[in-house]
Amino acid sequence: MARLGFIGLGHMGNPMVKNLLQKGHEVIIFDVNQKAVDQLIPFGAKPAHSLQALAKNVDVIFTMLQTGEQVKQVYSGEKGIFNVLAKNHLCIDCSSIDVVSSRKLQEIANLNEIAMVDAPVSGGVAGAKAGTLTFMVGGEESNFLRAKPLLEALGQRIIYAGAAGNGQAAKICNNMILGISMIAVSEAFILAKKLGLDPKKFFDIANHASGQCWSLSQYCPMPGVLEHVPSSNQFSPGFAAAMMLKDLRLSQEAALDTNTTTPLGAQATTLYSLFVNEGHANMDFSGIIKMIAGDSISI
Amino acid sequence: MARLGFIGLGHMGNPMVKNLLQKGHEVIIFDVNQKAVDQLIPFGAKPAHSLQALAKNVDVIFTMLQTGEQVKQVYSGEKGIFNVLAKNHLCIDCSSIDVVSSRKLQEIANLNEIAMVDAPVSGGVAGAKAGTLTFMVGGEESNFLRAKPLLEALGQRIIYAGAAGNGQAAKICNNMILGISMIAVSEAFILAKKLGLDPKKFFDIANHASGQCWSLSQYCPMPGVLEHVPSSNQFSPGFAAAMMLKDLRLSQEAALDTNTTTPLGAQATTLYSLFVNEGHANMDFSGIIKMIAGDSISI
Amino acid sequence: MARLGFIGLGHMGNPMVKNLLQKGHEVIIFDVNQKAVDQLIPFGAKPAHSLQALAKNVDVIFTMLQTGEQVKQVYSGEKGIFNVLAKNHLCIDCSSIDVVSSRKLQEIANLNEIAMVDAPVSGGVAGAKAGTLTFMVGGEESNFLRAKPLLEALGQRIIYAGAAGNGQAAKICNNMILGISMIAVSEAFILAKKLGLDPKKFFDIANHASGQCWSLSQYCPMPGVLEHVPSSNQFSPGFAAAMMLKDLRLSQEAALDTNTTTPLGAQATTLYSLFVNEGHANMDFSGIIKMIAGDSISI
Amino acid sequence: MARLGFIGLGHMGNPMVKNLLQKGHEVIIFDVNQKAVDQLIPFGAKPAHSLQALAKNVDVIFTMLQTGEQVKQVYSGEKGIFNVLAKNHLCIDCSSIDVVSSRKLQEIANLNEIAMVDAPVSGGVAGAKAGTLTFMVGGEESNFLRAKPLLEALGQRIIYAGAAGNGQAAKICNNMILGISMIAVSEAFILAKKLGLDPKKFFDIANHASGQCWSLSQYCPMPGVLEHVPSSNQFSPGFAAAMMLKDLRLSQEAALDTNTTTPLGAQATTLYSLFVNEGHANMDFSGIIKMIAGDSISI
Repeated sequence: MARLGFIGLGHMGNPMVKNLLQKGHEVIIFDVNQKAVDQLIPFGAKPAHSLQALAKNVDVIFTMLQTGEQVKQVYSGEKGIFNVLAKNHLCIDCSSIDVVSSRKLQEIANLNEIAMVDAPVSGGVAGAKAGTLTFMVGGEESNFLRAKPLLEALGQRIIYAGAAGNGQAAKICNNMILGISMIAVSEAFILAKKLGLDPKKFFDIANHASGQCWSLSQYCPMPGVLEHVPSSNQFSPGFAAAMMLKDLRLSQEAALDTNTTTPLGAQATTLYSLFVNEGHANMDFSGIIKMIAGDSISI
Repeated sequence: MARLGFIGLGHMGNPMVKNLLQKGHEVIIFDVNQKAVDQLIPFGAKPAHSLQALAKNVDVIFTMLQTGEQVKQVYSGEKGIFNVLAKNHLCIDCSSIDVVSSRKLQEIANLNEIAMVDAPVSGGVAGAKAGTLTFMVGGEESNFLRAKPLLEALGQRIIYAGAAGNGQAAKICNNMILGISMIAVSEAFILAKKLGLDPKKFFDIANHASGQCWSLSQYCPMPGVLEHVPSSNQFSPGFAAAMMLKDLRLSQEAALDTNTTTPLGAQATTLYSLFVNEGHANMDFSGIIKMIAGDSISI
Repeated sequence: MARLGFIGLGHMGNPMVKNLLQKGHEVIIFDVNQKAVDQLIPFGAKPAHSLQALAKNVDVIFTMLQTGEQVKQVYSGEKGIFNVLAKNHLCIDCSSIDVVSSRKLQEIANLNEIAMVDAPVSGGVAGAKAGTLTFMVGGEESNFLRAKPLLEALGQRIIYAGAAGNGQAAKICNNMILGISMIAVSEAFILAKKLGLDPKKFFDIANHASGQCWSLSQYCPMPGVLEHVPSSNQFSPGFAAAMMLKDLRLSQEAALDTNTTTPLGAQATTLYSLFVNEGHANMDFSGIIKMIAGDSISI
Repeated sequence: MARLGFIGLGHMGNPMVKNLLQKGHEVIIFDVNQKAVDQLIPFGAKPAHSLQALAKNVDVIFTMLQTGEQVKQVYSGEKGIFNVLAKNHLCIDCSSIDVVSSRKLQEIANLNEIAMVDAPVSGGVAGAKAGTLTFMVGGEESNFLRAKPLLEALGQRIIYAGAAGNGQAAKICNNMILGISMIAVSEAFILAKKLGLDPKKFFDIANHASGQCWSLSQYCPMPGVLEHVPSSNQFSPGFAAAMMLKDLRLSQEAALDTNTTTPLGAQATTLYSLFVNEGHANMDFSGIIKMIAGDSISI
């Protein structure tokens, strides 16, 4: 078994480390938040006192961080690990960050003969705990093949999306559809209800018609239609609105970088931005149906 | 077998009449366009020389018209058929019109003790020809039960949506999701491609992820991904952009009538309106991907 | 002096009646709200016990009502005044209603040989009190010329906009620009501030540049830039957000009726709808800057 | 008289150099496009064979380039002029670029004890030729005071916007209002016309009402209303749509960088992007009224 390093021990990183430990891996961990480190020691993780110390002691490094800036600091910053990693070392960045930064990092890795892939996930905290995440992986195929068996300890679907950054690209394009369709379904249910149509009846119709989509079939935002989804549990996440907004902003950054026109992507970004600004950052992203409903219907 | 009247013999009405004839019904037909009438005579349909003449000679009336105004004229206009219909006569309006007009007509029908339902369809010309339409039916349940066996001659799914106008409501709410998700999928494919992601690869990923929707899985607008869809056939319809725009405008009328906020419904209406205004009324509605792509990618 | 009738004694109607009385007119009044009637009696107005009683006793009728439906009831409803008005009587509808209804009413008036104009106002309650309203008048020019001297008792600018309904058309097109530009200016001030630009400095620059507009120069939504505007008085109206939303909805109705594409008009309607739905109906419409700012800046 | 260097000799740079020469300055010029250099030699400009050669021979440097990337290359790239400039040298960047890049460059300049300001312009090619540009200047006030007399050779209004990057911030916030209001005015004129209102009549009304804005009063997009504006000259620019799109994209980059919500800014960016993508990059930005009108009205 390879010795693994794991950097970034937040809501996602924590259960991912536990899963790696449970599969028998040795895992050395690091986070600027000491509390997050301490929580994992009872499970068998070993703390490193610095990024570089960690880097020198492992064969493979996972990162699960919040922002592109953090990822850059960790890898290529002044005290970053690229400075100390041995050649051919494998780095797996599971963070969701912008495509441009992801590609630049892999270029630098390349120049240093370090193997690297971007491997952002979908499935949220629940998927991280259950080990059922989906990984969308970008990078050289040989690097993907090295990463795959390790990622299988953490997820069910490990998909190769092509060259460096393509994992990020796949994720934000998918999540852009998701964010838009969640709002679309919300609008449709509110309009249907105001027109006097029973929500369950509308669900039955649209679910078998051309309006069918994952946001409707698997994650219906109208309370009382599906069990075991956030809308039937006071919109407790699930996938927080702030995280959806982060992904939508990444899509808009990518659209600006590539001169792409995304009229609904832009509109969905506006709407989640208004929703988060009203104080709903931690509500499930399907809670946007409350903003669409306004005070005219109690949701 | 009941004697049926059919008013409105356009692209949809024509194959619907043929299906009714083929099932052994006697069908008396009327249209202001004499040519449309003549085309159906060889198949056994019998022409009436006026709306009222038709109305006096049949037990059940189908209408398949373009606009709410036409439907009002035919039923409750000065020379409309409500003036001559016998009590308990059944009227089945298959036109897609605004909810308010549909409800008003059924109120008038009620006062005259005429049975009426709204029964708009999805499935397009292809579905009309194949007899595989979906009907979303609104009106009193007893009227729905009378209409159902007749509609089974024309379609595969006959769904009861509740009170008068609910068939229209269900259709426009469903199609609002459809119009929005088609644009969302188009934006995602163009952005993915500009980011260097292979379209088939992106399809495989999103189709098994939270971005899955009918517009992607069954009707992918990116050429070359699915066979036998309009995008792989020069965007020949299918479901014309002008028809999608009509349904979106109906959704916006309904939203104004009910004080509902539909930010993406409004945006989709804007986009199909710009698309149709550029001269693409008769292109399949998935052709909007060409407008999203602009001249930066040849689609 | 002509004997005048005035129907609709709300926030606007009340001060308008007072101004007519002060100019020496005899004014007979009616409102379904008895309290609104009673408030004007001390000022010399005479109550009528019914619409029709009022109509029989005056030469000219003013209406200042909330909705197109109310206006229709008052004029052409079952107990409406068109049933009793003498020929050549002049009706001045100052309500803001949809263009189609306004035109239909004037058609009916025409058939009954009653003179009628639409004369919606801008200037708000403050303008009504001060007698400084602007009237945008539609109808036959001869009718406009009869109405003009009477309207001069109530306003400073009495503009002839052309045929029936054109007063309404002019008002909603103007107010659509107003609603859009108020949001545009709000976005620009928030963005400028977040970029570190002093609001007064930005005002000075934009006010002399191509970003100049009435919303900025005369009604700046950024608090502390201009004195004596709602933004410097806790966004107390002024012109309430709910009234702006009403006008924007009228613009969208007109756009649907005429197949016009109004991408920013639709977006502004969405935004004021979200704003009003959050409970800000009675805040000045410039308060939308608070929604744009969100919790990131305290406005 | 100071010896001036000028880098970037395009549509704007060319007339700016001529104005500097005419005021008696010695101007050394550089552009990667030799043709652009040659055109200015007959007017007295002296060519440099490299950026660094130019930098060593002048006291003050002007740059007027297209993109942030070009500006970075010229100043801080491998062969950039920061490498050779003497301390206290003054750099005036007149390019319109993103705020973040502009600020980073001035930080680097600061570290090298080079004086630098951002000084983007408004007024277009016509203003550059006439010497009537407006400059919005950001940077330390002492640097602004050094730049001001030189800029007065090129423009009429030289405005100090505050710290580094504030010139860029002021310009993009102003132009965001401009782009939005141009579309708003276009929508209003098309809607007014479809409602039967005469364009000149609507102009007279809105120009004296709350819809007044620079886009309407000074640059009306409806042909035939104002003389001497692009709409009355086949939409020949003026200010090209592609340039407006560039500024709107900069506003959206700034909005993403600062977590600002700009619903209409985003929508205007979408619309100009669709317009440019249809092949109208070089049309005046007021030509967007043609897209709003579609084929329903010939503009």
